[in-house]
Amino acid sequence: MDIEIITIGDELLLGFTIDTNAAHLAQELAGIGIQVVRRATVGDGAGGIAAAVREALDRTGAVITTGGLGPTSDDLTKPAIAELFGRALTRDEAIVANLERIWKERGRPGPLPAPNLQQAMIPDGACVLVNRHGTAPGIWLEDDRGRWVAMLPGVPREMRGMLADELLPLLRRRAGSADRVVRSRTLRTTGLAESSAAVQLGDIARHVAGLPLAYLPGIDGLDLRLTARDMPPAEADARLAEGIEQLRARLARYVYGEGTDDLAAVVLQLCRERALRIAVAESCTGGLLGARLTAVPGSSDVVEGGVVAYDNRVKQALLGVRESDLRDGGAVSEPVARQMATGVRGRLGTAVGIGITGVAGPSGGTPDKPVGTVWLALDVEGAVRAARTIFVGDRDEIRRRAAQAALDMLRRAITA
Amino acid sequence: MDIEIITIGDELLLGFTIDTNAAHLAQELAGIGIQVVRRATVGDGAGGIAAAVREALDRTGAVITTGGLGPTSDDLTKPAIAELFGRALTRDEAIVANLERIWKERGRPGPLPAPNLQQAMIPDGACVLVNRHGTAPGIWLEDDRGRWVAMLPGVPREMRGMLADELLPLLRRRAGSADRVVRSRTLRTTGLAESSAAVQLGDIARHVAGLPLAYLPGIDGLDLRLTARDMPPAEADARLAEGIEQLRARLARYVYGEGTDDLAAVVLQLCRERALRIAVAESCTGGLLGARLTAVPGSSDVVEGGVVAYDNRVKQALLGVRESDLRDGGAVSEPVARQMATGVRGRLGTAVGIGITGVAGPSGGTPDKPVGTVWLALDVEGAVRAARTIFVGDRDEIRRRAAQAALDMLRRAITA
Repeated sequence: MDIEIITIGDELLLGFTIDTNAAHLAQELAGIGIQVVRRATVGDGAGGIAAAVREALDRTGAVITTGGLGPTSDDLTKPAIAELFGRALTRDEAIVANLERIWKERGRPGPLPAPNLQQAMIPDGACVLVNRHGTAPGIWLEDDRGRWVAMLPGVPREMRGMLADELLPLLRRRAGSADRVVRSRTLRTTGLAESSAAVQLGDIARHVAGLPLAYLPGIDGLDLRLTARDMPPAEADARLAEGIEQLRARLARYVYGEGTDDLAAVVLQLCRERALRIAVAESCTGGLLGARLTAVPGSSDVVEGGVVAYDNRVKQALLGVRESDLRDGGAVSEPVARQMATGVRGRLGTAVGIGITGVAGPSGGTPDKPVGTVWLALDVEGAVRAARTIFVGDRDEIRRRAAQAALDMLRRAITA
Repeated sequence: MDIEIITIGDELLLGFTIDTNAAHLAQELAGIGIQVVRRATVGDGAGGIAAAVREALDRTGAVITTGGLGPTSDDLTKPAIAELFGRALTRDEAIVANLERIWKERGRPGPLPAPNLQQAMIPDGACVLVNRHGTAPGIWLEDDRGRWVAMLPGVPREMRGMLADELLPLLRRRAGSADRVVRSRTLRTTGLAESSAAVQLGDIARHVAGLPLAYLPGIDGLDLRLTARDMPPAEADARLAEGIEQLRARLARYVYGEGTDDLAAVVLQLCRERALRIAVAESCTGGLLGARLTAVPGSSDVVEGGVVAYDNRVKQALLGVRESDLRDGGAVSEPVARQMATGVRGRLGTAVGIGITGVAGPSGGTPDKPVGTVWLALDVEGAVRAARTIFVGDRDEIRRRAAQAALDMLRRAITA
């Protein structure tokens, strides 16, 4: 089943509110085999709402709207769509009673104000979708050709509740058992450019196990997503498993996880299994690597702590970096990175020490060491290695890529 | 001028990515008097892209697209729209040269891969919109009836840069002077709940200077946004200035900035003016405060560095926290926070020391010290103060709120 989503509201169109409802709807619908094929956003005006819904009905015949169901004068979704369907609005006394009950429960003074009664006006022949998280009921309206519109509230909590409680069960019944679904799996890699991935994948760069492969580059690396569409659940799962296995086989050393796996959590678990404790010495990242590691609940059994050695004085005083190396090769150099890793490891008495020093920009770059130049060093029980990378992006991206690369350096070292 | 926005990408339609580009575009366009009247999202398929663009051109004649300009086979925006306009794609040698230069600068091996050359194919008669933040150039395409499509990249940073550098100036010239605009200004506060703000604002809690006031609570505090709609630019600016002044007068000590001001940058500037250098000692935030401070370009003239004292051994060894205080009152206690602030200040030889110790959760809470309990301490040239707060939210939110509160403690101390 294909559907379209129309999100309604001036605040969305003006950009004051970022539309999170559409993404949530799409994911939930995909889980029961329903595919969103188009999405539109229109303002609060009745004309724009009616036009967008009419076009979507003509194209797809199945539409979910969010927003414009409240009690104020700019909530026009219901009258606009009722008119499009040629249905009158009739007051539903059960909904009036419910609105009055909520009004009293919330301790509001006086009788229910007239505008709130708008919410009790229901198009003739419509089904009411109960709202357990707010006052505006949802509406299901269907014409004699089986084309339908489901109207949900715009407040995310109310929309999500109504979707789960009312609309998904209704759509599931309507679709029969979801005999065809959309499912996807994502492999997470780091240290691999999009074009290099395509070269390494060769004949499976576009399709794997008959499924299309999408490349999703981000700050933390390159995600590879396989999507199985419009097929039985068992077939989707089998093809996804086969596809992921093929991708893993070709990209093995770049892969650190799946789905929403966080490299910091992966590295913490690897260290936990090996009883290795970590100390970090950060210059250009200024605490970002420590923050990433300690963002993971339970990190205290692996992370000892660290030193933010932003100024060279701190590199010398707390980490024992030699003044001569700072003077001769500069703070962004291999000897300094190595001494930072070894220094923090010694100082904090851990098995693992990590050192990061680089030019995050926007200023401070030189022809020799352009903005983005970062030296990373790793000391694992006395075995020290170091690597230089030139990261692209702005200051924030360079720092985040450097922290991610440092984590990956440790991951590779202890799994090699 | 009315326009429509079309955002392109399977990841948007499937709900894997939340569309933030559309909101940013709408806000920036409103600032120069251009109104977004409709928005659509379609998948990567050429047919869907062409259909959506054709409909929008027929309705509005002015379209901005984002996404689908990359080097891979699912980047079809350019060929789909070129075909719709009846234009061939021709290779632009200047763009090829630029792509090759970037490829080399990034130290990638070998020649530029063939797929990347896709980005150098330009529809005949199009203008190129220069991309200073990535490789995919944008495209401006116009037909003989003056209807146009501007194609921007989907990566938010690239889209934003190209919009500011290229498209907004072009649209401003094209629109002439806008006689009615939508403009807004936002005041940033921290340490103030939404309901307390409304009480303190009293008679101006809903409207100020005839403009509606919106409350936008977030992790970093409460933003207050005034919006002037559909009025001449001079009137909008005058009302916004008057409204902001009234809000500032009532909320003075909570206000740290305007618009997108970052409290870390505000604090750094205050310290810079007073020639104060900062050192941080972090336990539960694990480096987050250091990362926030050093995220600001030029922070090295204020930030000396810090210690991530995640384990109690580090609190003792590097910061001189007394073992007896750790044993008697626990790591999350006033004496420990104070000794952390004073210890890091002494160790790094700075004027300012900040200490943070708390229970970020999800586990580790007790009836006495529930999850969210954080002790903050500040030592400014020997004058030490400390405060306990119980922050709400999950682990990530508690840590971010704690870092923000520490910055605000310093802001208030040095501006008092």
